[in-house]
Amino acid sequence: MPTSAIDSLIFRDIFGSPAMREIWSDQFRTQKYLDFEAALARAEAAVALIPKEAADEIVRVCKVEKIDFDRYAKETLTIGYPVLGLVHQIAQLCRGDAGKYCHWGATTQDITDSGTILQIKASFDLIARELDRAIAATERLVREHRSTPMPARSNLQQAVPITFGFKMARLLATLRRHRARLIEIRPRIEVFEFGGAAGTLATLGDKGLAVQEALVRELGLAQPDIAWHTERDRIAEAGCFLGLLTGTLAKFATDLKLMMQTEVGEASEPYIANRGSSSTMPQKRNPISCCYIHACAAAVRQGVAALLDAMVEDHERATGPWEIEWITLPDIFTLAGGALAQACFVLEGLNVDTGRMRANLDATHGMIVSEAVMMGLAPAMGQTKAHDILYAIIHDPATGDKSLEEMLLARADVTADLSAAEIRRLTDPANYLGLSEIMVDRVLAGTVG
Amino acid sequence: MPTSAIDSLIFRDIFGSPAMREIWSDQFRTQKYLDFEAALARAEAAVALIPKEAADEIVRVCKVEKIDFDRYAKETLTIGYPVLGLVHQIAQLCRGDAGKYCHWGATTQDITDSGTILQIKASFDLIARELDRAIAATERLVREHRSTPMPARSNLQQAVPITFGFKMARLLATLRRHRARLIEIRPRIEVFEFGGAAGTLATLGDKGLAVQEALVRELGLAQPDIAWHTERDRIAEAGCFLGLLTGTLAKFATDLKLMMQTEVGEASEPYIANRGSSSTMPQKRNPISCCYIHACAAAVRQGVAALLDAMVEDHERATGPWEIEWITLPDIFTLAGGALAQACFVLEGLNVDTGRMRANLDATHGMIVSEAVMMGLAPAMGQTKAHDILYAIIHDPATGDKSLEEMLLARADVTADLSAAEIRRLTDPANYLGLSEIMVDRVLAGTVG
Amino acid sequence: MPTSAIDSLIFRDIFGSPAMREIWSDQFRTQKYLDFEAALARAEAAVALIPKEAADEIVRVCKVEKIDFDRYAKETLTIGYPVLGLVHQIAQLCRGDAGKYCHWGATTQDITDSGTILQIKASFDLIARELDRAIAATERLVREHRSTPMPARSNLQQAVPITFGFKMARLLATLRRHRARLIEIRPRIEVFEFGGAAGTLATLGDKGLAVQEALVRELGLAQPDIAWHTERDRIAEAGCFLGLLTGTLAKFATDLKLMMQTEVGEASEPYIANRGSSSTMPQKRNPISCCYIHACAAAVRQGVAALLDAMVEDHERATGPWEIEWITLPDIFTLAGGALAQACFVLEGLNVDTGRMRANLDATHGMIVSEAVMMGLAPAMGQTKAHDILYAIIHDPATGDKSLEEMLLARADVTADLSAAEIRRLTDPANYLGLSEIMVDRVLAGTVG
Amino acid sequence: MPTSAIDSLIFRDIFGSPAMREIWSDQFRTQKYLDFEAALARAEAAVALIPKEAADEIVRVCKVEKIDFDRYAKETLTIGYPVLGLVHQIAQLCRGDAGKYCHWGATTQDITDSGTILQIKASFDLIARELDRAIAATERLVREHRSTPMPARSNLQQAVPITFGFKMARLLATLRRHRARLIEIRPRIEVFEFGGAAGTLATLGDKGLAVQEALVRELGLAQPDIAWHTERDRIAEAGCFLGLLTGTLAKFATDLKLMMQTEVGEASEPYIANRGSSSTMPQKRNPISCCYIHACAAAVRQGVAALLDAMVEDHERATGPWEIEWITLPDIFTLAGGALAQACFVLEGLNVDTGRMRANLDATHGMIVSEAVMMGLAPAMGQTKAHDILYAIIHDPATGDKSLEEMLLARADVTADLSAAEIRRLTDPANYLGLSEIMVDRVLAGTVG
Repeated sequence: MPTSAIDSLIFRDIFGSPAMREIWSDQFRTQKYLDFEAALARAEAAVALIPKEAADEIVRVCKVEKIDFDRYAKETLTIGYPVLGLVHQIAQLCRGDAGKYCHWGATTQDITDSGTILQIKASFDLIARELDRAIAATERLVREHRSTPMPARSNLQQAVPITFGFKMARLLATLRRHRARLIEIRPRIEVFEFGGAAGTLATLGDKGLAVQEALVRELGLAQPDIAWHTERDRIAEAGCFLGLLTGTLAKFATDLKLMMQTEVGEASEPYIANRGSSSTMPQKRNPISCCYIHACAAAVRQGVAALLDAMVEDHERATGPWEIEWITLPDIFTLAGGALAQACFVLEGLNVDTGRMRANLDATHGMIVSEAVMMGLAPAMGQTKAHDILYAIIHDPATGDKSLEEMLLARADVTADLSAAEIRRLTDPANYLGLSEIMVDRVLAGTVG
Repeated sequence: MPTSAIDSLIFRDIFGSPAMREIWSDQFRTQKYLDFEAALARAEAAVALIPKEAADEIVRVCKVEKIDFDRYAKETLTIGYPVLGLVHQIAQLCRGDAGKYCHWGATTQDITDSGTILQIKASFDLIARELDRAIAATERLVREHRSTPMPARSNLQQAVPITFGFKMARLLATLRRHRARLIEIRPRIEVFEFGGAAGTLATLGDKGLAVQEALVRELGLAQPDIAWHTERDRIAEAGCFLGLLTGTLAKFATDLKLMMQTEVGEASEPYIANRGSSSTMPQKRNPISCCYIHACAAAVRQGVAALLDAMVEDHERATGPWEIEWITLPDIFTLAGGALAQACFVLEGLNVDTGRMRANLDATHGMIVSEAVMMGLAPAMGQTKAHDILYAIIHDPATGDKSLEEMLLARADVTADLSAAEIRRLTDPANYLGLSEIMVDRVLAGTVG
Repeated sequence: MPTSAIDSLIFRDIFGSPAMREIWSDQFRTQKYLDFEAALARAEAAVALIPKEAADEIVRVCKVEKIDFDRYAKETLTIGYPVLGLVHQIAQLCRGDAGKYCHWGATTQDITDSGTILQIKASFDLIARELDRAIAATERLVREHRSTPMPARSNLQQAVPITFGFKMARLLATLRRHRARLIEIRPRIEVFEFGGAAGTLATLGDKGLAVQEALVRELGLAQPDIAWHTERDRIAEAGCFLGLLTGTLAKFATDLKLMMQTEVGEASEPYIANRGSSSTMPQKRNPISCCYIHACAAAVRQGVAALLDAMVEDHERATGPWEIEWITLPDIFTLAGGALAQACFVLEGLNVDTGRMRANLDATHGMIVSEAVMMGLAPAMGQTKAHDILYAIIHDPATGDKSLEEMLLARADVTADLSAAEIRRLTDPANYLGLSEIMVDRVLAGTVG
Repeated sequence: MPTSAIDSLIFRDIFGSPAMREIWSDQFRTQKYLDFEAALARAEAAVALIPKEAADEIVRVCKVEKIDFDRYAKETLTIGYPVLGLVHQIAQLCRGDAGKYCHWGATTQDITDSGTILQIKASFDLIARELDRAIAATERLVREHRSTPMPARSNLQQAVPITFGFKMARLLATLRRHRARLIEIRPRIEVFEFGGAAGTLATLGDKGLAVQEALVRELGLAQPDIAWHTERDRIAEAGCFLGLLTGTLAKFATDLKLMMQTEVGEASEPYIANRGSSSTMPQKRNPISCCYIHACAAAVRQGVAALLDAMVEDHERATGPWEIEWITLPDIFTLAGGALAQACFVLEGLNVDTGRMRANLDATHGMIVSEAVMMGLAPAMGQTKAHDILYAIIHDPATGDKSLEEMLLARADVTADLSAAEIRRLTDPANYLGLSEIMVDRVLAGTVG
């Protein structure tokens, strides 16, 4: 039975999605290796480096179903790298002497790097789709709650009113920035590797570049300007993107966890019978997805540091750093995919309690708009002095449960500047949403980011 | 097919060992959960909290073979936590009404935490054995090469002579410190969890502590002074130990990789046919195990940071941080176990080329003992001035391939202080091993660390 | 003007304490280097390796006030290491030819490592004192609030009642475990370094060990069994301890931040006029110290990973990894010291609002004790079925604002098993503290940890 | 005296550059805060929100020389944030009542975030310049050594020949990708913050957006689509860039350290008298800059994880995560700037020993071109079988010091396929550079990346 959380029969659909897990599975990876060997054979036949018939035969057998995984695993363990064992099987599966043309001029890492890039490309396709789902769901929440008042919170203290749409619009703008990032980095990352032992394609005579050009068509990946066996910025950049993306998802999860608190209750994860139920406390409904998103993001960001570490490679083929990627990449792509899937689930079914938002807004008897009052006083006495007056009132132990309105009305230095009607208007939170709705409209218009 | 490197059919025995992987598998973990439920039933029966017959029945069914994993996985996915689904199955498996006494007074995390500790305990048993193997193998190398001269290297420059036994004795001393650490931390870590919903054992009336005391006997774990559902220093401390241990293994791997270089060739990993062979460069013999150790250590140290992050838990049951452990623990224990297994393999079969060590020692024509000469001059002229003279000689472009002996003999300010015989004695590396052998003996005597 | 947060004129007392900053300052570090050179001279004179008068003269000049820091900095920049430049100055400051005996047989890293250990020792003394302060303050809170009821929270949902003393007792037990750890690791860490170029003390003839033995008395540090220039487990272990300690402080800070929320208000940081005031929202009182503790802990845990990385050193003197320590150690000790100072400040002046705790406990109309009711039903119908009944009641939309008592009284399957009086007793949170107070007493008795 | 490595009088120019340190100093940061306050006053006067005269007066006093830093530090310590204390001083410095218009409608984080972005912008300007320097120096090396043969190394084993220009061209291509990244991310990052308490600009009535638009002109930064007080992807993305950049520099440092080894000696850091000298081993010339680059990169990558952690912010103003940035940003920008400066120094003065490169190439008696022979055999017998033959020859203990040429000539299964002349041609490393030079030309042509 599996060991890792992402493969665990019990946890795998919690920390990952089937679609992303599939991309990083032994099966998919091995098929991508085979795809590369097939593409290489076709490319080399196209430039008359190997016989056309040999290429056809190699292409015919490069199917993961034909591979004996037990033997493949054993040979990999002996050799230490996962390609020669595969090449041996392909060679044996080929009829005639076609097998001797397999892997022609390639080195192990040409295959594994190109395979990894094909896995990353598939992952990015999936992430792009899921990100669009998250963006669409967030957009719906932004539109629906454009004008739903709620308390902003600064340092976990109620600050001033905002709308829930405003809160979600910040998420929307951020998710769109991630989409823009993904579009930018993909052409730089989705580049194959084919350089032979040290990147010089020395075994191909003068046909090396022609084979590379043919590979572009075969693989749907760009041609490298030069070998990158030990220049791993592309891989680490992919990791950085996952770190940034999951960081945003964890911020959203944090907000939602806090809004789900018994004492706050403004929003909650989609309700599914028994989900988040406790074995001992039946009244609870736990923020399940938020917890997973939080944990996935924490693991991913450490994986980013590991991938940056993996950049510190030696010479033309590295002695250890490269293997860090083998461990880290499947983990962080799966975990990031899991976090994104959980976020989509939550965003698409989010329960919003607008009544509770309003009740919380009123809970401080107007204190939440002390800023408005301060700004109302400021033209007359300066912002700093106005701040000090409000600060004094609020920290006066005599205040008790009195409303801000009452307290202000009792101070001569305030009523000298503001009428009772003005004080009433200023102390109603619903009159102090600022540009919440205009900012929402700006983000929805979406010219930026 | 699996996704993670530690479960991959192809990579799992590279980055992990079967024994450690087994301990962190779904099967073993689930059996530990069941062991806890069985122990709890027995403990509660012992204090007459539940009927003896119910306990017997619960004990009878708490076997992992009886669990329907598909159903268990589905329920876990719905609920979000991996215990209630299991309790439901146990309850159904029980004859009569015994099932209703299962999990009595416990909360999900009592089971998972105690299960995790049982996994850690089993892991520590395994690590202790493997560490002893590594220590024994290192001891053999230390004894055998107590007096084998080789160059010390500082900043990758040849410095002064040492013996290979001296080099290995430093590793030996460090591995022993890790053994001492493990012995120290185990009693603090190997403590079960049983506190109920918030740690107050509120559902057990006045029998809570009696049940805990009975659990000590059942589980072979210590009783906590108070619940630790959200005080995770024990778990993080276990992670720190793995970080320290693999750090040492990676230092050894680094040294060996460097000694295996074509240009150095002083030692190499055990030879196995085809191991470390390249698909294109048949002359190479790559440092395979060293690469894996390096990568495992890199991943483990980031896992340590993740576990420290997981300590930042909220209130009485955490909202996200705890799940970081679910992801990280199986990974870092398996990877640390893998690194340790690789290190044992290498240490037990290490090839040492004493001839190459001597040749390298002579490669700089005596320059490697310039310190000896400096110290020979120092009594007469002070260490600083002696240093400057040697520095000047060495950086004199006229030096070319002349030996240090020749150069010294050519300087009046040197021969004024040292005779030719003295210069000859000083410039032979084999006469400048210092306390290498005595330090080896001190470490072998092993009273320290 | 300074650049780093820990040196910034504006931030340094936020992220660090003057006492810890002093220990890691240029001045203190340099004095420790000088202390080592003086101790070495005395030790070498004691075994007649250098003249007694030379040693006296070296001891006389080894005072940081005598050092020209500009020149020292310039020479360090040229040489690349911070010792030779200092030795040159000492040598010049010495009268006669005493200077030539300074640094006799030592290598740069003997001085810097021993200096670092002296800094760590001073830091541990300071941490031990501050930890005792934190423990004492926590103990007072535990005693005072042994019986103060408040809601436990699981996944940020109110769970069952506990006492605030119980919550703090968990912190107390954890802080004591850290004290125990510190006591364990200090003898292993507080070991000097003195091995010469490659650790073999080759320049000291047969007097090397005698000098080491004399150094024990001079430095108040233990003698190493063998050189540890590139075996950095001691340093990394010190870092791990800081990671564990600050992890616990950040957990406490998290709890307090959450308790300080406008909607919760159960406890708050000590009040100081204007502290935590906002430039625009005068009503707010922000959790200032908690924020800093959170940030310090986050930086420290990544520093732990950096120190584990620094363990991967090459051969006898490392080429880069060692310098990681130069960057990381001053940072993480200062930040950990800062976090601990902030925690002491908060613990010693913590405001506890027991009224708000009780009010929050009552906010769910008895729902918080649904577990108690479940356990009251369990003996009759089994825990699982009892759980399901409560779960159904709670999620029944008809419930609205009705109390749990009312709802239970309305169900025949409940009243069949429980009387109205029993239901009333069960639904009062103050009757459901479990072993909160007994656990508090166990921790205060303090035989464990 | 300072504490951190980047401020240390002794270490600051090792781990940082004066120019970058200046940008992150208290002085520069405070001036950027003042610049923002001045810009805000001008912008608000432009839209008639505050009097033109007040703005002029505020602009007049917003100079860092006018600030009493002691008082500023004390107030910051009390308040907990570094803006109100500054605003108080500005207000007092202003003549008349102009001061009351200072900071109008702004919140602390508007100032600090905009200030941070101005610091990042200045840092990016500096990095762009230094990166260009590094690129230019690398280009020179690439051109000069386009055809200089040397051994490629895979897993630290000599693999096949390459040219040194080919090795450097890979670095060149990578540095250019970093330049492209920097150009891409800057417009997304260089955005000011101005939103007031919760980002809604509630205190500015309907003039909020007009003020923002005026700020664009004043600050030279872009207008945000919405407040980003707690959406920190921009900041973390800047950190990721530094992680990627220093990862590449550390790879280069690793290669150079390895080439500087006594046993390799192919290249070395620029020679400066006494640089890298050892206090005890005068013959050594240590790779100083490489060590610092290695260490800086290690610290920076952990800082990246910290900045990703800082993204997990709560609600509208975060409670701890934000402060992680205060600690991390000055550190990682300074360290990255330091690493880049060290890399420029090394690249501009690199010593290349082409003779040693050739000697190392010949050291294995032709073994290094065994791949060429394998490929020469491959057309006749298939690559796999050819590989096995070469593998067998090389691991044949009878081989001893015989050259590959001799061994091949002795095998009938080889001479059956290859003539003696062909074998001689194949076994000369200088005939096996592959596309090294063509790849160099491709990179120099520079259309890619």
